[in-house]
Amino acid sequence: MASTKTPHAPRAVRLPHPLPLDSGRELADVHVAYETYGELAPARDNAILLCHALTGDQYVASTHPLTGKPGWWERMVGHGRPIDTNRFHVVCANVIGSCMGSTGPASAGPDGEPYAMRFPVITIRDMVRAQAALLDVLGIDTLLAVIGGSMGGMQALSLAANFPERTNRVLGIATTARHSAQNIAFHEVGRQAIMADPGWNGGDYYGAAGGPEKGLAVARMAAHITYLSEAGLTDKFGRRLQDRDAKSFGFDADFQVESYLRHQGLSFTDRFDANSYLYITRAMDYFDLAEEHGGRLADAFGGAGETRFCLVSFDTDWLYSTADMREVVHALNAVAAPVSFVELGAPYGHDSFLLDVPALDRVVAGFLSQ
Amino acid sequence: MASTKTPHAPRAVRLPHPLPLDSGRELADVHVAYETYGELAPARDNAILLCHALTGDQYVASTHPLTGKPGWWERMVGHGRPIDTNRFHVVCANVIGSCMGSTGPASAGPDGEPYAMRFPVITIRDMVRAQAALLDVLGIDTLLAVIGGSMGGMQALSLAANFPERTNRVLGIATTARHSAQNIAFHEVGRQAIMADPGWNGGDYYGAAGGPEKGLAVARMAAHITYLSEAGLTDKFGRRLQDRDAKSFGFDADFQVESYLRHQGLSFTDRFDANSYLYITRAMDYFDLAEEHGGRLADAFGGAGETRFCLVSFDTDWLYSTADMREVVHALNAVAAPVSFVELGAPYGHDSFLLDVPALDRVVAGFLSQ
Repeated sequence: MASTKTPHAPRAVRLPHPLPLDSGRELADVHVAYETYGELAPARDNAILLCHALTGDQYVASTHPLTGKPGWWERMVGHGRPIDTNRFHVVCANVIGSCMGSTGPASAGPDGEPYAMRFPVITIRDMVRAQAALLDVLGIDTLLAVIGGSMGGMQALSLAANFPERTNRVLGIATTARHSAQNIAFHEVGRQAIMADPGWNGGDYYGAAGGPEKGLAVARMAAHITYLSEAGLTDKFGRRLQDRDAKSFGFDADFQVESYLRHQGLSFTDRFDANSYLYITRAMDYFDLAEEHGGRLADAFGGAGETRFCLVSFDTDWLYSTADMREVVHALNAVAAPVSFVELGAPYGHDSFLLDVPALDRVVAGFLSQ
Repeated sequence: MASTKTPHAPRAVRLPHPLPLDSGRELADVHVAYETYGELAPARDNAILLCHALTGDQYVASTHPLTGKPGWWERMVGHGRPIDTNRFHVVCANVIGSCMGSTGPASAGPDGEPYAMRFPVITIRDMVRAQAALLDVLGIDTLLAVIGGSMGGMQALSLAANFPERTNRVLGIATTARHSAQNIAFHEVGRQAIMADPGWNGGDYYGAAGGPEKGLAVARMAAHITYLSEAGLTDKFGRRLQDRDAKSFGFDADFQVESYLRHQGLSFTDRFDANSYLYITRAMDYFDLAEEHGGRLADAFGGAGETRFCLVSFDTDWLYSTADMREVVHALNAVAAPVSFVELGAPYGHDSFLLDVPALDRVVAGFLSQ
């Protein structure tokens, strides 16, 4: 996606103030693109902030303007769904640093040219600051809940830690309070794949015919493996061949899993900006909620007061494991925060939070009805 | 490593006959480079064939001619070591398809130009055919043992299945009888990283100033993650910063694990040929010992007779897990082959077979003394 122009006009607000960043820099002229689903009640007390994952966007339950595909969580959000838009006003904003309408590296900087690598390095907390500023603009003081899976869950936890007064409930799914060495390693492979692509050109590829699409595809392929369990990959593909009866003894995609990964990589480049991938993975790698709060995770949640937490992990998720989640639970227990925790059985690995796991539906609906 | 010339003169034999390949093709004028350690007994009954892993070579217990580093298994092979060169004659050959003196894609084809991607796609069984042909030249009919870890273990199992009369013992460490969908997926990421590099140029980069070194480095980085356990990475690196007191809020290697991976990737390109990486990963992905023998793994070992097997897995190896190894054990049990199996505790993941695991030394020494 080498264009500097988003080929649609997303619904967005311009934040009234520059955004202070963890790096010490400020980001001025910040636009936050968002979608809403369901009506805000007159008392303004039924708002849910949904936070998307690394490559997600604000199109939770509406058609993606670039791909034409359904929203990424339509099974969870809508009329009569677990996050019931008959009852709740759902807000989902594109994170800053991303490429679906919120200010990111593809956006014009002060000189009118795309920021590219002049965009400041941001953190998960910076993303959350932008979310809070959006809520200010929308006139939503206190959320009924903040909800997110994966990087969305990091934002949910960060919001609870840094803006505890702004939400009554926190629901984190398949997430972690800290990126591990292995997590960082996989992201570093992706970043190096992008930067190794001559089309990246130090980040200055906007307006060029092609960007670092091959590098971005490789980054996506590497990451995608971590989103699936080994058993899930085996069930889905095993060693089955792709449209052939025998091995080709060549380098075509003989195996279905190869063909699938290549497709995942290529289709990703149609909708995502490589520099955004660099910045958002960096934000995730920097995420360590304990470190932000003096080194003790429990201290991150000292101000959570009556905020209720619900945390969900999946038994086959090896990216953000149940053990990672237990650390969060223990920290919440240490400050006597009300928390429920469940490890769900699901065969799909990390991506389970996006897939058909009826038990997750029940957990989400139950937590919101309390 | 874009040169067509290996910058040393390895000890090698030229096979007297063309090598038949699983693809149906033949490879003519095959050279097999090898090293030996310890004397061959007059009865020629003390030979051990060591098979190296994906990026390994014949320099088991002698200095690597390109890197100047010690041999890759000096802790296991030598005077008084578990594979004691006072007693045994150890042979280790560079696999065909590789780049340390055996015929591979960088070698001159019939027209005198490097094969590059005209090199035939080979299999693990083809590698083993070359090993057997080398043993013929060396006048070694029956091995005291064939030993290998990782891809070396695949060769050991394949030799037992296809040339059962040629060895009395088989020792497979941290290996598998079949590459899984996840194994294939990681290799495919590496291949795509290489092929995405414009320096790859369809494989025709020999003699050029630079080959696909960036792509090869990314491939190595992705693979390297799979060689280590998550706990091992956490113990070794955690979230420690590299030579700095605080995050840089940039894209330098802030974290030690990033710096380590970058080094692993870059240093690899000094000693390995990218096309060899493509061919050898393909051979591994094609490996399915059951499929080669009618779909039932036990049938692969029907001719093993009195051959004794010893299989070793590591509890933290998520590349080739204990569960993979158990399938081999069950197949051997089904044909009543003598087999001992042990899962060793070691924190390092797949790479444990190369590292300081004293329990492995005892298993190896014990198996060879029986």
